[in-house]
Amino acid sequence: MSPLSQELTDRILAAVDAGFEDQVAFTEELSRFPSLRGQEHTAQDFLFREMQARGYTMDRWAIDVEAIRHHPGFSPVDVDYSNAINVVGTLRPAEEKGRSLILNGHVDVVPTGPEGMWTSPPFAPRRDGDWLYGRGVADMKAGLAANIFAVEALKTLGYRPAATLYQQSVVEEECTGNGALACLQRGYRADAAIIPEPEDDKLVRANTGVIWFRVRVEGVPVHVREAGAGANAIEAAYELIRVLRALEEEWNARKGDHRHFEDLDHPINFNVGKIVGGDWASSVPAWCEFDCRIAIYPGTRAEDAAREIETHLRRVSDGIPFLANNPPQVIFNGFFAEGYVLEEGSAAEETLTRAHMASYRKPLESFVTPGYLDGRVFVIYGETPCLVYGPYSEGIHGFDERVSLASVKRVTGTIALFIAEWCGLEAI
Amino acid sequence: MSPLSQELTDRILAAVDAGFEDQVAFTEELSRFPSLRGQEHTAQDFLFREMQARGYTMDRWAIDVEAIRHHPGFSPVDVDYSNAINVVGTLRPAEEKGRSLILNGHVDVVPTGPEGMWTSPPFAPRRDGDWLYGRGVADMKAGLAANIFAVEALKTLGYRPAATLYQQSVVEEECTGNGALACLQRGYRADAAIIPEPEDDKLVRANTGVIWFRVRVEGVPVHVREAGAGANAIEAAYELIRVLRALEEEWNARKGDHRHFEDLDHPINFNVGKIVGGDWASSVPAWCEFDCRIAIYPGTRAEDAAREIETHLRRVSDGIPFLANNPPQVIFNGFFAEGYVLEEGSAAEETLTRAHMASYRKPLESFVTPGYLDGRVFVIYGETPCLVYGPYSEGIHGFDERVSLASVKRVTGTIALFIAEWCGLEAI
Repeated sequence: MSPLSQELTDRILAAVDAGFEDQVAFTEELSRFPSLRGQEHTAQDFLFREMQARGYTMDRWAIDVEAIRHHPGFSPVDVDYSNAINVVGTLRPAEEKGRSLILNGHVDVVPTGPEGMWTSPPFAPRRDGDWLYGRGVADMKAGLAANIFAVEALKTLGYRPAATLYQQSVVEEECTGNGALACLQRGYRADAAIIPEPEDDKLVRANTGVIWFRVRVEGVPVHVREAGAGANAIEAAYELIRVLRALEEEWNARKGDHRHFEDLDHPINFNVGKIVGGDWASSVPAWCEFDCRIAIYPGTRAEDAAREIETHLRRVSDGIPFLANNPPQVIFNGFFAEGYVLEEGSAAEETLTRAHMASYRKPLESFVTPGYLDGRVFVIYGETPCLVYGPYSEGIHGFDERVSLASVKRVTGTIALFIAEWCGLEAI
Repeated sequence: MSPLSQELTDRILAAVDAGFEDQVAFTEELSRFPSLRGQEHTAQDFLFREMQARGYTMDRWAIDVEAIRHHPGFSPVDVDYSNAINVVGTLRPAEEKGRSLILNGHVDVVPTGPEGMWTSPPFAPRRDGDWLYGRGVADMKAGLAANIFAVEALKTLGYRPAATLYQQSVVEEECTGNGALACLQRGYRADAAIIPEPEDDKLVRANTGVIWFRVRVEGVPVHVREAGAGANAIEAAYELIRVLRALEEEWNARKGDHRHFEDLDHPINFNVGKIVGGDWASSVPAWCEFDCRIAIYPGTRAEDAAREIETHLRRVSDGIPFLANNPPQVIFNGFFAEGYVLEEGSAAEETLTRAHMASYRKPLESFVTPGYLDGRVFVIYGETPCLVYGPYSEGIHGFDERVSLASVKRVTGTIALFIAEWCGLEAI
């Protein structure tokens, strides 16, 4: 496929513009579904119906753990997947002329935190000037809608992609990455993939991998009368958190060994995100557990990082009275995922660079992000160039999450132009 | 009343001995009721039936918060009291000749903690040699049974107390003390009271008061990328726990000002007993709350200690980035109770000293305990000498709680002898 003519480029961007109010309404409707982990299925059923109505051939299935358990990209899971539903819509051309494409997005959202800290209810999306507010509007329901409405814009011009196009809405991106992995295992492959995550109008060049783990401390406490800091499970847990912060710094000190990460200030971030322990104010707590997330450099196997975490915790536990006799348990209960690098010079990236320039009228920038992305499934295991690229946002994973609608419109334009050039177009 | 004759003393102790297997069976039956906070009512209904069958006039009511809210001994409460039932049985003599007596015990028990850490199920009492195992067997179902079987022993000899005797089974001793307070408010008064808490065969001379409070930290966190230790609600909570440990040491350093406490190694104990915070491993937690217990010296008003805790937390919060803009909330949600001193020289203590010597054949020791006791309601607000005195135990508030049955038998003997001397006896 050759670069698009200026005339076609303008018509495509105008079509995106013309459809944008519908796209925003669709995004709002999708953002009303509280698609928290374990509750994504109603949003997925909505997307199934919406894609089916737009002419896609539909596929919908619950993730089958047994089918992916032995895949090197699998993350351990401690929840039931009966309602962990993936949805994929397929558009096939009359004649397969162009390069095939996967448009991917995740429908799961992270918890809201205390609702009182939101200016307005997180699952009642609210538009205020250029901003759309709500949990998941940026991460990443605006992206899912952009994928669908990029294709719709072409349709209003009388075109469809001249190569197979898959619209994937996956679950589990915020905790394991098993949703995208299950698509790969089911056989979905293409010549390129786009994931419009909220990336502030930039392309992700590389990211870190992420590991989740739970640390559980349990042991016979002494009586309240004798309870110094070391004998209380909650306070023993804090000793371990301090130790994990030290490991974080150790890993950050190794950044010089990792291309793309050496210039970042603090590429490896550790987070203790959840804690629960003890039963009664007047009993010395005998147990405490906390949930953690830590990043790893691309090229580091999750397995090796996990062993290092365990060894590190074991070493310090020997010095803490409560823990010496009750070594902490470490349970890997989520992300067990490597990072990826999008190698420069791919045809897909060249196409995105042109499409972005046409839509934004400024050059595409790339950057390195210290968080998990489903892009790793495509790049590492699917050997597919994956362009993680999407709109400007604020407050993802926090309060008053919001996405810039002007940015969403430009991203949609970029995707529509990308499809036109990458897949080619055929008249409907 | 004059000291008992040796012959009557021997007959009473023999009667306790003869009834002891029944008493142990009764204790086991009572210990099967999982009378955790909010679930005491089935055990209370059992005690109601058992006392009624033994000839007591019965009273049973749910604690009425409005009736006690303005009492200086009231502790704030954040749970529903619909099922917080007190039970009192009354025995009246034909002719009121002696001194009246309250036998008091609490039926509520503290949580078991992880059941896997118990050798056998905590609510399936198990007898092994001299030990009876189970949650609450020592604290204090053995004591409740001792109160009832001390009177039964006299009955087998053809006697009842020659003064009004109240058998009180109260709730809320492990969290507020509002159960005993509600008995006082309802008008129950007597010339002395006995509470057979597990006190290792000794009399409590003084105890600390106890305050419960919950500290809640909440605020807008920064992104995981920028999240140092100070910006995470869980780690900010830990800063506050450290600060409360410092307050604990400050209060311990004042022990010289408090008679009965100056010789204790560490009279003021702080405990963080429960914690919960955050929602998601990969989100910087915006909230965390932890439940605490701290002791106060007798003579210190709960109100004044509470203000000191608040001031202390406020002062340090100014120096912690996350907290400076989001000062922690302190919620007093339980014990708000002063300690008491049992002044030496009361007639009740003299009577107990004789009864103990007869039952144990060794002198009564007294001691100071750094924990809460319902005795404070009787001593401070009822102006009633209250003898907190009971059996030898291990593991209360921990795992494999157990009580010595030999000790329970002697305590029961002491109580029976006390009744005979204090109340006097009349033939049934």
